[in-house]
Amino acid sequence: MTITITAFERSPDGGKGLARDTRVRWALEEVGQPYQVRLVSFRAMKEPAHLALHPFGQIPTYEEGDLALFETGAIVFHIAERHAGLLPDDANARARAITWMFAALNTVEPPILELATAMLLEGDKPWHAERLPLVKDRVRGRLNPLSVRLGDADWLDGAFSAGDLLMVSVLLRLRSSGILDEYKNLAAYVARGEARPAYKRAFDAQLAVNTGKPSPG
Amino acid sequence: MTITITAFERSPDGGKGLARDTRVRWALEEVGQPYQVRLVSFRAMKEPAHLALHPFGQIPTYEEGDLALFETGAIVFHIAERHAGLLPDDANARARAITWMFAALNTVEPPILELATAMLLEGDKPWHAERLPLVKDRVRGRLNPLSVRLGDADWLDGAFSAGDLLMVSVLLRLRSSGILDEYKNLAAYVARGEARPAYKRAFDAQLAVNTGKPSPG
Repeated sequence: MTITITAFERSPDGGKGLARDTRVRWALEEVGQPYQVRLVSFRAMKEPAHLALHPFGQIPTYEEGDLALFETGAIVFHIAERHAGLLPDDANARARAITWMFAALNTVEPPILELATAMLLEGDKPWHAERLPLVKDRVRGRLNPLSVRLGDADWLDGAFSAGDLLMVSVLLRLRSSGILDEYKNLAAYVARGEARPAYKRAFDAQLAVNTGKPSPG
Repeated sequence: MTITITAFERSPDGGKGLARDTRVRWALEEVGQPYQVRLVSFRAMKEPAHLALHPFGQIPTYEEGDLALFETGAIVFHIAERHAGLLPDDANARARAITWMFAALNTVEPPILELATAMLLEGDKPWHAERLPLVKDRVRGRLNPLSVRLGDADWLDGAFSAGDLLMVSVLLRLRSSGILDEYKNLAAYVARGEARPAYKRAFDAQLAVNTGKPSPG
């Protein structure tokens, strides 16, 4: 059955790979599943046809036969559950990899989203300069223990998993802030993620959409 | 095998049920699994023994035989995957219920966490009064489409699921703000969750810890 995902017609990041379709593309590339992409404009995302797929009017969505999903974490999990390559076989190791998926999205990403909001939506507010260090410290409040736990390991728990895929994707959003570079092992962890051939293919595919050039794949 | 979770020795909310152990207690009550609770102090949460279980130094954790998990969403999912009552049998319906789990934690909860942060950590800042309406509007930006999608249904997608358990838990944090009452169907949805016998047992158990009185169960 054909897999179809949605992505921005033009990503707000201009092709830096930070839009959430990159996470889904990466998962599909890791497990070797081909997929089609339907591009949606900002206007179309808020229209009934798209809202029927995604109640919050966002991307990505995932369609396969009569199954329609939204929410990046759930889509990545669905792919990981059905195809080998993103979750370990051992039951306990699998449960721990899923734990890191949720940790990436519900413990590490919220303060990073708050930092993005402070920059994008409150950058012109009178409190911005004084408040920004507080927000950055809340991000460090998550990165400190994450850095301790990772230590000098390559990945968070044994082999690369969907937990690493999401954690690297979440941390990538920090690069422009400079905070990631305060943690050598986390910066190297993110670089390891970006060096994976599947990530590169996913990145190139989303870049091709945003530059209008065909993907080399 | 005995299931052991951790909870606050004294919850910051004084027993309102907003600490995350309530979510795990609720899931265990829904599927009828007995569990033990190990209470941890704020100091003990940041010590090596607890950090080995939970790298971010929080509660709850989940131990069962040689499996140790952290992160509420992952624990609720683990319980839902192993015991009947929180995920539908049909594969597509199951994937959609999991989608709502992630939507609760990664789409709806982040702005609610930001509102909690604004109240708890920035309530004394000079920008608080002017900034608060912006933060509340970002919460409404999620509740508006959620309210539309729920409509007059009892639960988000068919029968009650782990997706509803997490969504109700996330929305409960909004009650003191008054925002929940702006959405009649969401307020009724949360009340339906609270009326479930399993929720009541979970709530009473966490309350007993915080009042020092034994649970009626």
